[in-house]
Amino acid sequence: MEDPGKFLAVMRQTAPLVHNITNYVAMNVMANVLLAAGASPAMIHAREEAAEFAGLAQALTVNIGTLSPPWVQAMEEAAAAAVAAGRPWVLDPVAVGATGYRREVGARLVARAPTVIRGNASEILALAGAQTAGKGADATDAVAMAHAAARDLARRSGAVVAVTGAVDFVTDGRQSAEVANGHAMMPRVTALGCALTGVVGAFCVGQEPFAATVAALAFYGLAGEEAGAVAAGPGSFQVAFLDALAALTAEALTSRARIVCA
Amino acid sequence: MEDPGKFLAVMRQTAPLVHNITNYVAMNVMANVLLAAGASPAMIHAREEAAEFAGLAQALTVNIGTLSPPWVQAMEEAAAAAVAAGRPWVLDPVAVGATGYRREVGARLVARAPTVIRGNASEILALAGAQTAGKGADATDAVAMAHAAARDLARRSGAVVAVTGAVDFVTDGRQSAEVANGHAMMPRVTALGCALTGVVGAFCVGQEPFAATVAALAFYGLAGEEAGAVAAGPGSFQVAFLDALAALTAEALTSRARIVCA
Amino acid sequence: MEDPGKFLAVMRQTAPLVHNITNYVAMNVMANVLLAAGASPAMIHAREEAAEFAGLAQALTVNIGTLSPPWVQAMEEAAAAAVAAGRPWVLDPVAVGATGYRREVGARLVARAPTVIRGNASEILALAGAQTAGKGADATDAVAMAHAAARDLARRSGAVVAVTGAVDFVTDGRQSAEVANGHAMMPRVTALGCALTGVVGAFCVGQEPFAATVAALAFYGLAGEEAGAVAAGPGSFQVAFLDALAALTAEALTSRARIVCA
Repeated sequence: MEDPGKFLAVMRQTAPLVHNITNYVAMNVMANVLLAAGASPAMIHAREEAAEFAGLAQALTVNIGTLSPPWVQAMEEAAAAAVAAGRPWVLDPVAVGATGYRREVGARLVARAPTVIRGNASEILALAGAQTAGKGADATDAVAMAHAAARDLARRSGAVVAVTGAVDFVTDGRQSAEVANGHAMMPRVTALGCALTGVVGAFCVGQEPFAATVAALAFYGLAGEEAGAVAAGPGSFQVAFLDALAALTAEALTSRARIVCA
Repeated sequence: MEDPGKFLAVMRQTAPLVHNITNYVAMNVMANVLLAAGASPAMIHAREEAAEFAGLAQALTVNIGTLSPPWVQAMEEAAAAAVAAGRPWVLDPVAVGATGYRREVGARLVARAPTVIRGNASEILALAGAQTAGKGADATDAVAMAHAAARDLARRSGAVVAVTGAVDFVTDGRQSAEVANGHAMMPRVTALGCALTGVVGAFCVGQEPFAATVAALAFYGLAGEEAGAVAAGPGSFQVAFLDALAALTAEALTSRARIVCA
Repeated sequence: MEDPGKFLAVMRQTAPLVHNITNYVAMNVMANVLLAAGASPAMIHAREEAAEFAGLAQALTVNIGTLSPPWVQAMEEAAAAAVAAGRPWVLDPVAVGATGYRREVGARLVARAPTVIRGNASEILALAGAQTAGKGADATDAVAMAHAAARDLARRSGAVVAVTGAVDFVTDGRQSAEVANGHAMMPRVTALGCALTGVVGAFCVGQEPFAATVAALAFYGLAGEEAGAVAAGPGSFQVAFLDALAALTAEALTSRARIVCA
């Protein structure tokens, strides 16, 4: 595995402009996470400008958490613009298995050639066509249950697929890795998964997507560990987590990342 | 009055999936409050899926804080789906007296048979058809001014009506209770009232609505007391409040709830 | 320069109802900032009620961060209602130079006679028709580069123009002032600029716009200094900033404001 700290250092030096079409719950947290990590976020969703802006930004992320038809059109057009401009784009299929509308939109977005797909086990299973017990945005399936589905989805879509949970799993269909950094309080703060999608997008700017995604996940999980060491509950965890994202050095990431090639 | 701690214990054991169609200001706070309390939140508002999802979730909450016509349609359809599925749904009539549009939408939603209606005194007075000085989302009327209007609204709508403020008042039109837990800093943090509506919805899953609402209000107010004891201002209050929601035990709620049958 | 503390004292005594049509990222922070500062926020954007509510509120702010056509119509109608009612309204032209749609909407709103326009240097340069390197919502131009453009925009539009950055610049086209309060961590927390626009609106209620804007900027920057003195990173900064907005006294503002007539 390549040195994960190097990917963090490159991301911070680039300070990439990341365009996010994301859900209402996540927008503020995602912007703060990207700023703390060292990137520059922008949230733009109207059809009148989304594709134009996707061509200007250095990465795009699309999250289906709070869908509506005009947003879906903007998502598709922005994804097409990112692909046309050779920019990485990351799909976050929030609760994709919950309703028929979500399943349909998820399938349409997978067909738009995302660079990375990041979801929890229930979401990746649903996107890969498997049966799942997922409810809302919370995973009810374990990551290990989704390894095969993730490999299958990666081969079929051409995307790097990241399944996040207690131990994350990343695959491009050929190579795979597991990332063990993280903290049990992370799922108790809303939209931290959504915000991670932005960090993955930032790391993928000018860097190889599989290794960049692995490094982003280790960075994020390590910030969670730092926060968990001082937090008294989910409120103070969120505060400490943003502080940790800003404070973590490339050296700390290199020495404390827990990555295993799988 | 029944043991309020029991209602908290049952809610946490159920960890109900609560579907919220709420305003943009409140979405993130509401999700974090529900996660901290022990429930599983989902925010879904598009007509294309809101009714389908309301049939899957264990409770629904509807908040009119930031309205627009497509959302109102989704609210009505989701409420109908919740009623058809026998699930509790809670109405939060934010600033219902402020504009003609809000008054009309508020009346339409009351006609959809909510299980609980939770608002401040100005909102409950406006919904009950009384004159009020309410401005925006902040109450300008005292809770005691709204007792009669709340009883009237409860009898007319069939809902439990909760008027929250310095001392909360809950009634189903026959029985009534007052809840004295709370802290003066709560109205200085935005959307804490909106987020409470989600907690009321979570408590009502599989539990009798009047007593469950009273218990939810005591739980929420007690977390406010805990936060107020350590906070230096509204910023640190919000952080401590989320921590307290997660840390409060059923035993602490039972021993420190200040509930009076009225 | 007039005593800035006096403007804070008047604002708190008025506790003005400020109507904000703002972006999804900023809504929650802006509401919390206004509550902490001592004002009463309301977020209402639907065409069905925005103009009616703008006539009821004591000030209006319009922010183009996350645009869409129905919101733009509501913005224009609300601005017209504020002007008709003789209420101050503040324009925040977020990322106005980024896309053609934004440039067009920005020009239309400037024509609606805002009382104050507040933006970063890149935004004011773009609004004044200059070339700029601004990307997304983050300024890439220094405030000093925008002094002439700000004066020009103020004369042309009739608005007070505030360019915020390391040292803020305020002008009405005749007189100008610089405000040196602030902290380097402020741009690392999302939407603090957007939220400042709300504070400017609150200060302008019943007070002369140029001096009120200068006082609002000094108040905001001073709260940033207080927060920066105790924060460990952007997460704890945001918490301490809200606490400081609530705790700062008029006397402290008068003695510690760093305002220079320019």
